Amino acid sequence: MDLILKLNQNFAKELVILENIIAQNLNHEIDMIRDILKHVVQAGGKRFRPMLLIASTALVEGDDFERAARMGASIEMIHTATLLHDDVVDDNHLRRGRETANKLFGNSYSILVGDYLFTKSFQLLIDNKDIEILDIISRSFMAMAEGEVIQMMNVSNFDMDVETNLKIIGAKTAKLISAACKIGGIVGGAKEEEIKALGEYGESLGTLFQIADDILDYTGDAQKLGKPTGNDFWEGKMTLPLIYALKNAPEEEIAQIKNIFKTKDLGQFPQVQDFIERHHGVENTLVFSKQIQEKALGHLKIFPQNQMRQFFEELVNYTLIRAA
Amino acid sequence: MDLILKLNQNFAKELVILENIIAQNLNHEIDMIRDILKHVVQAGGKRFRPMLLIASTALVEGDDFERAARMGASIEMIHTATLLHDDVVDDNHLRRGRETANKLFGNSYSILVGDYLFTKSFQLLIDNKDIEILDIISRSFMAMAEGEVIQMMNVSNFDMDVETNLKIIGAKTAKLISAACKIGGIVGGAKEEEIKALGEYGESLGTLFQIADDILDYTGDAQKLGKPTGNDFWEGKMTLPLIYALKNAPEEEIAQIKNIFKTKDLGQFPQVQDFIERHHGVENTLVFSKQIQEKALGHLKIFPQNQMRQFFEELVNYTLIRAA
Repeated sequence: MDLILKLNQNFAKELVILENIIAQNLNHEIDMIRDILKHVVQAGGKRFRPMLLIASTALVEGDDFERAARMGASIEMIHTATLLHDDVVDDNHLRRGRETANKLFGNSYSILVGDYLFTKSFQLLIDNKDIEILDIISRSFMAMAEGEVIQMMNVSNFDMDVETNLKIIGAKTAKLISAACKIGGIVGGAKEEEIKALGEYGESLGTLFQIADDILDYTGDAQKLGKPTGNDFWEGKMTLPLIYALKNAPEEEIAQIKNIFKTKDLGQFPQVQDFIERHHGVENTLVFSKQIQEKALGHLKIFPQNQMRQFFEELVNYTLIRAA
Repeated sequence: MDLILKLNQNFAKELVILENIIAQNLNHEIDMIRDILKHVVQAGGKRFRPMLLIASTALVEGDDFERAARMGASIEMIHTATLLHDDVVDDNHLRRGRETANKLFGNSYSILVGDYLFTKSFQLLIDNKDIEILDIISRSFMAMAEGEVIQMMNVSNFDMDVETNLKIIGAKTAKLISAACKIGGIVGGAKEEEIKALGEYGESLGTLFQIADDILDYTGDAQKLGKPTGNDFWEGKMTLPLIYALKNAPEEEIAQIKNIFKTKDLGQFPQVQDFIERHHGVENTLVFSKQIQEKALGHLKIFPQNQMRQFFEELVNYTLIRAA
């Protein structure tokens, strides 16, 4: 069973609060803004980040779940704002099986409504005078923009190394997930070392999460993903499966892969998949992920042995199982 | 003599602080981010908004000009972030006589560095725990995005009325200028009614400022403007000179103007200018502006009769003289 769905059932009341706050903030008087907000926010991700925030509050045995839900709404809105901009930047036309806002409404509206949504989510925190949490979220958002820039600067860079990829993942994905965990701890009244551990757990979990996505882009089922596989490859985004395979492959095979990339002929993707497999791209990515998995589990050790801790452990393991 | 330059001389010390803070924030470790930030922030507007903020502190006889300069840096950075996004949205290639960032570096980088810069300017305020000021700035930024959306929704809408145009100007331009004045008052320890008056003065000044720009787009000198005239017309942006002329003109002439618009033949712009003149477009815009000018001056009445008040009065008058 899907772990996030389990979480949603566990915190059904908080999920309702969360969805209500999000819905209130969609209700804009300008049609175009309202339509785009509804399209993107209701597209209904699994509310992974806000639910993780709420679960973190529970992990440290806090009880102000209403505040956690409010913070969660803000995080979900920030996340959605970045999706609006990322889809323009990457010229994506599909997400979760639906057409993207930039495809339906155009790039300009996506940029502006992204700006609006981003500020609106800040405004929720400003209204609550939550400077400490604003600080965490603002720094995460800055990192996300930086991560996207580093990624773009390395498009088609077949020499990109593992470290640069991890830097991109850290900034682009892991930082906001880490923020969700930390904020959940703060709301739950956690001790400083617990907040730190939550932040580091989130960092590792977010990294695993992105790595799993990157693996699935080579090995997944387009139907289940809601988007075609091979996106990263054809967009020139270097991810670990490709980076590890390139490290192992002989010169002439690398040249072949570069040629395939240049043809932009999607029909040749099976050859790329084959290349990744023969040179242990996914295999080595999984070996590396195991280390991060161990780290993530290590950060949980200081928490009470409650049901939530078990859930946080499962979440790490499940993230890898999903991709393996 | 240029009034803003006079202001810059008056507050030479604060201008140095302001420029230093801005420069510090440009110094990013990622080349691409640094290059774009330097390009846009150092393109060197006149620092109108921050200097207005500092002058507002002086108007209410405050003395913490260093804090005012810090707030000013944040406002200037927000303003610049919106320019980065606006130039993508409007597909502008020239600004102040130089190529825009989107032209030089591409749309994607402009979007991402705009996001970065916007958050960075928030971060300055978060670091200072200035919730009240964060609130004003965040609301202004939200309004700016909304104003841009309303403007886009009305592109090529030859039936647009004066009220809608004023709504766009209020959100897009006047709000941040109003914020600068209000924040200057707050930093200067002004009374509630003074802060309110400063906000309303700024609203009127910002409106006049935008109207002057809109007039110059029909009547100005391309060399001086640093961009070609006629931009608004060819982009289908309805501004007061055109709106008033359309109100007065007979059906068949309106049809002609719509036809010229469709040809996108820049060579026919003199006919558009002639149409505006014959139907008193600029004339009526100036008549209307006189009312706003009076309002702006009225809001200044509660302030002490000092040198700064005189400057604020001149500023209103000068804004119109520039366009008349």
